[in-house]
Amino acid sequence: MNPLFYLVPAASVIALFFAWWFFHRMMKESEGTVTMQEIARYVREGAMAYLKQQYKVVTVVFIVLAAFFAFLAYVVHIQNPWVPFAFLTGGFFSGLAGYVGMRTATYASARTANAVSRSLDAGLKVAFRSGAVMGLTVVGLGLLDISIWFFVLQAVYDPSETQNLVIITTTMLTFGMGASTQALFARVGGGIYTKAADVGADIVGKVEQDIPEDDPRNPATIADNVGDNVGDVAGMGADLYESYCGSILATMALGASAFFGDTTLQMKAILAPMMIAATGVVLSILGIYAVRTKDGAGLKELLKSLSTGTNLSAVLIGAMTFLIFRLLGLPNWWQLSLSVLSGLLAGVVIGKATEYYTSHSFRPTQKLAESSETGPATVIIGGVGLGMRSTAVPVVTIAVAILLSYAFATGFSFDPASLGQGLYGISIAAVGMLSTLGITLATDAYGPIADNAGGNAQMSELDPVVRERTDVLDALGNTTAATGKGFAIGSAALTALALLASYIEEIKIGFQHIGKSIEGVADIAQATIPQIVAHYNITLMNPVVLTGIFIGAMMAFLFCGLTMEAVGRAAQKMVVEVRRQFREIFGILEGKQRPDYTRCVQISTRAAQHEMILPSLIAIIVPVLVGIILGPAGVIGLLCGGLGAGFVLAIFLANSGGAWDNAKKYVEEGHLGGKNSASHKATIVGDTVGDPFKDTSGPSLNILIKLMSMVSIVMAGLTVMLHP
Amino acid sequence: MNPLFYLVPAASVIALFFAWWFFHRMMKESEGTVTMQEIARYVREGAMAYLKQQYKVVTVVFIVLAAFFAFLAYVVHIQNPWVPFAFLTGGFFSGLAGYVGMRTATYASARTANAVSRSLDAGLKVAFRSGAVMGLTVVGLGLLDISIWFFVLQAVYDPSETQNLVIITTTMLTFGMGASTQALFARVGGGIYTKAADVGADIVGKVEQDIPEDDPRNPATIADNVGDNVGDVAGMGADLYESYCGSILATMALGASAFFGDTTLQMKAILAPMMIAATGVVLSILGIYAVRTKDGAGLKELLKSLSTGTNLSAVLIGAMTFLIFRLLGLPNWWQLSLSVLSGLLAGVVIGKATEYYTSHSFRPTQKLAESSETGPATVIIGGVGLGMRSTAVPVVTIAVAILLSYAFATGFSFDPASLGQGLYGISIAAVGMLSTLGITLATDAYGPIADNAGGNAQMSELDPVVRERTDVLDALGNTTAATGKGFAIGSAALTALALLASYIEEIKIGFQHIGKSIEGVADIAQATIPQIVAHYNITLMNPVVLTGIFIGAMMAFLFCGLTMEAVGRAAQKMVVEVRRQFREIFGILEGKQRPDYTRCVQISTRAAQHEMILPSLIAIIVPVLVGIILGPAGVIGLLCGGLGAGFVLAIFLANSGGAWDNAKKYVEEGHLGGKNSASHKATIVGDTVGDPFKDTSGPSLNILIKLMSMVSIVMAGLTVMLHP
Repeated sequence: MNPLFYLVPAASVIALFFAWWFFHRMMKESEGTVTMQEIARYVREGAMAYLKQQYKVVTVVFIVLAAFFAFLAYVVHIQNPWVPFAFLTGGFFSGLAGYVGMRTATYASARTANAVSRSLDAGLKVAFRSGAVMGLTVVGLGLLDISIWFFVLQAVYDPSETQNLVIITTTMLTFGMGASTQALFARVGGGIYTKAADVGADIVGKVEQDIPEDDPRNPATIADNVGDNVGDVAGMGADLYESYCGSILATMALGASAFFGDTTLQMKAILAPMMIAATGVVLSILGIYAVRTKDGAGLKELLKSLSTGTNLSAVLIGAMTFLIFRLLGLPNWWQLSLSVLSGLLAGVVIGKATEYYTSHSFRPTQKLAESSETGPATVIIGGVGLGMRSTAVPVVTIAVAILLSYAFATGFSFDPASLGQGLYGISIAAVGMLSTLGITLATDAYGPIADNAGGNAQMSELDPVVRERTDVLDALGNTTAATGKGFAIGSAALTALALLASYIEEIKIGFQHIGKSIEGVADIAQATIPQIVAHYNITLMNPVVLTGIFIGAMMAFLFCGLTMEAVGRAAQKMVVEVRRQFREIFGILEGKQRPDYTRCVQISTRAAQHEMILPSLIAIIVPVLVGIILGPAGVIGLLCGGLGAGFVLAIFLANSGGAWDNAKKYVEEGHLGGKNSASHKATIVGDTVGDPFKDTSGPSLNILIKLMSMVSIVMAGLTVMLHP
Repeated sequence: MNPLFYLVPAASVIALFFAWWFFHRMMKESEGTVTMQEIARYVREGAMAYLKQQYKVVTVVFIVLAAFFAFLAYVVHIQNPWVPFAFLTGGFFSGLAGYVGMRTATYASARTANAVSRSLDAGLKVAFRSGAVMGLTVVGLGLLDISIWFFVLQAVYDPSETQNLVIITTTMLTFGMGASTQALFARVGGGIYTKAADVGADIVGKVEQDIPEDDPRNPATIADNVGDNVGDVAGMGADLYESYCGSILATMALGASAFFGDTTLQMKAILAPMMIAATGVVLSILGIYAVRTKDGAGLKELLKSLSTGTNLSAVLIGAMTFLIFRLLGLPNWWQLSLSVLSGLLAGVVIGKATEYYTSHSFRPTQKLAESSETGPATVIIGGVGLGMRSTAVPVVTIAVAILLSYAFATGFSFDPASLGQGLYGISIAAVGMLSTLGITLATDAYGPIADNAGGNAQMSELDPVVRERTDVLDALGNTTAATGKGFAIGSAALTALALLASYIEEIKIGFQHIGKSIEGVADIAQATIPQIVAHYNITLMNPVVLTGIFIGAMMAFLFCGLTMEAVGRAAQKMVVEVRRQFREIFGILEGKQRPDYTRCVQISTRAAQHEMILPSLIAIIVPVLVGIILGPAGVIGLLCGGLGAGFVLAIFLANSGGAWDNAKKYVEEGHLGGKNSASHKATIVGDTVGDPFKDTSGPSLNILIKLMSMVSIVMAGLTVMLHP
């Protein structure tokens, strides 16, 4: 074993230590008044209760799937015997990351509110450090899972045999499927929960009764705050755990296949993504400390130091990449580093573009706000148009990044012979983008914490200035999080491409399980990707491939449709209940009588649990069916169609939702008549529609794309048996 | 020349004769009162004026493009010398079809209103026969253009040489590009015009002032009625002319390449689509006459006879296909006929699915209507969700149809060697679906005519019963048109697939122009599709292809975003103007003062002319750029990505829009509080949002997909020169 490997578990331990440290420091802060503590406990208990329920359902799914994989592995013998276990650990760690993040967030909200009442600066620190707990937990657990499995598998399969390195790395991909499955349930379930409550609370509260957000008189307000935690925090944690591990695992697998036949180079290529990720952990911690500011710093300074933190980490990881590749002694070390730089640059551009289209400091969202003067219909039309149009820059950027990171890695050759190296270049670019997740996730996760702190402040009836300050923190979080989101979106596309190649690798292993080979190739293990592609005729003139593309594109829409309708239905139930309470429980509006918060929490919980199952199962079952019916050519078509349409659809939904949200804020800042004007009402409709766009369907899509790939990879053995 | 060919121009003449005959008969009807005549003239003049303006802009585009093609043909010598002329005739005939349809419709509206005041039955006949004028004009002009070009080209290029048949048929594809270009401008320009007026009129009229649709007090009402004609009638005519010719031309080109080397079989395969289309003309006329009912027939009988007409034509064309292929003596005649049947069946299923998801006789739209009880936001969320979910059945259906029509044509072989035959099977299935366009378009086009008749009745202040009857006609038209729409959607996907193969053919011809060949092939004319595919590595593991797929998927969204924002902007201007008139011109609301209709007409006209240019030019320029930068592999990726995402997006937009429209009608029928209730207002927001979904962006997408293919085909010479 290359001694450099041990840096990886070391980085994992460092990450987890600092996560614990920041958590410990945060817990020392005061939780404020008795009311604040009570509300925080209420929200915490609701969130934990929901998460427990969700994990119960997910556990059943995991047991069934693991049993099925065990059947394929031990009875039919077309599956690697480690698969069921790898699958389970992936799901477990992903769920754990979400749990820790949410637990931290629910402890942090009242503390942030309390700190904010002292100063903006103090509040930022509590919220940001709590976000950092989540960021560091995700990367720490990710690297831990990866280290353990790599250590165990290389002890079992002798890594001095070139084929064994392929087996080790492709086996590890299975734990990616576990993580993706968990993430999808978390995003879909959490997304439905939070948006049902949010939409329901807004429609009756803001539109019908004219009471502010998070007003304690609103029966859905606790459910809304619980939702922020289970959706935005736990969901996001599981999501990014999946992305982070997925990119590293896919790159390891590609490294093993790109340098097949030379175990020294293979091992270096496998270590590289782990090393970059490990370095990223240290740089993230460095960045988090760089966010430290003097006491009494102004808002601008705070913001600047936040950006300094993330930018510092990003620039340093770019520079360190050269060193890492050089240290590993890969022959094309500086070219591969340029691949990583292309990815980082693409992430920055996508982040900036997102900011341009969705921030109300720029014309597009301002124009959208202006369309509210002609009512809600033009707001919706304008927002849908804006979101669709805004896909152009990110897609062209990612297209350029794909071509560049590929071309750098192959020395600008597009010859099929150098395909393996090129795909490795694409994949390592994704790792670079996610390597500083420790800090980028902190800038992303502190937003919901500040939001919850605001909710707590409002419900505890603190001085309105507290709420104003938490709103500022929340809004600024959106700006600083842009780069992180750009990295997340871009890396998802690149990782999904890399997984296509991993699928081909699994096809080869599937042939080994059934003891066959393809025509003209004596030893299937030696077959190149182009040979497999030729065997299955995975060209765009094959009707089976084209059929797959259609179904893949449809899957993205079907999945979004189901989750969106789920939110709509659940929100309607919430509205009916909230209206009922206002009507039947006298004195709620006057604040004389406490509303029945529990009923609303129950509605969200039941809806989320009930509604998350169908879309999630479809995401698992369809790739299996396509594999069985259409074979590998159909599966690759499915994955490409899903990736192409899903990636663009995800950007559209995210940007439409973001722009609607900020158009509403723009009006609330006093433009176009300000709060309670007709324009404001129109933008609230936009914001409400945008909720499931940007927080339920949109973010689930990135997971869907990768989960379909992961399922296909794990089921490749069965597919090959039926379509040799 | 095979004497069977002459049946094609004969069918064309028959179609045009009957079109003239129905027109003549319609013109003999009375146009009603002086007011009715005046309003009809007003609308007619507005529509003609707009069309003139639009054609002026489009003429400039055509001249520039034709000059560019002439440059490529006569100066650079990488283009066939006939291309500029074929391109121009395609555009001319497509424009002519739209013009004739619109002229007919504007003469028919007052006549329909007048006939309806006698009886429903009489009104149906006038409207339906007027729709038939458009249907028969489209197919008549289409077959005329095809016959002339085939006749001329086979006189120039000796058809007894196998390569010449390829040249003849691929040259003819260029006139498809002319038709597609014209159709895109017509759909986009007309779509923006009509929806700007419609949305603007609805927002101020229905929502703010509570006056009914088409009320003469609404300043935008004339613009709205003009819009129905330029968008729904002229736009639809140009659109379906493009689809009809595109499917026939693509099949002819595939026939020439599938049977390369055997001129007898080639000629038969080329004649087959023309023969099916010619037969379809006769069957359509038969069907149109079958719609004849006894005087005083009840509504149910009328409806039944309408369905009888379309069903009769569809069943007969299925049966006749066997005869045609047998008569031509193609060896796999009955298998090819089964391909056609698969297509027809798929069209019927898609039509039924569309009806299920969008008609308020079924649960999905009823549930959508119920979501209005919680306000406009849940209506929008529900409608978007419904539309996205509704894509599943059509996509799976078309996937099955692709595989079946391919498999029948090849004898269930998926070997690349039989690719040509299989693609021919897919393409001929599309021809079958569109062959009875004469009647299916009549059932589609009579809806807008009835709608306009209603507008005329309302503005002329006829007995309200007239309006009620025209509403019934319009609504029932939506039901009977479902099958026709299913055929149009399905055939677009199949034709687009066929055009992929035509692109590969053009690549070969491009090589001939530059006098080169690919590695391992002595004579490029003999190269098979798989050889070209291998040469350019058009596999799904090529990063260039994947990049193309991303850009293609993005194009569908970008195009929709631009057109949707255009409608939003134009509608806002309209709202501002209508509000101004209500405010500044005293006595409008009391009916004492006539509003300034002209200003509103001008706003729509200017907006449409101005806003249609950018999206349309992007559709032309992007495929050219992708060809120049990424080469054929990138272009094929672009087309597949655009097809996959665009097809699904188009269904989503159409069904969301349709469901919103009918949910509103469901409420208006008295459910959920009926007219003027809060539910009604909420569904009006949905309907307004749905307008650009279903009538601007959605229908333009099918053209976009094919236009991008056509542009790529025409520019293949340049692409090959740069990427040999």
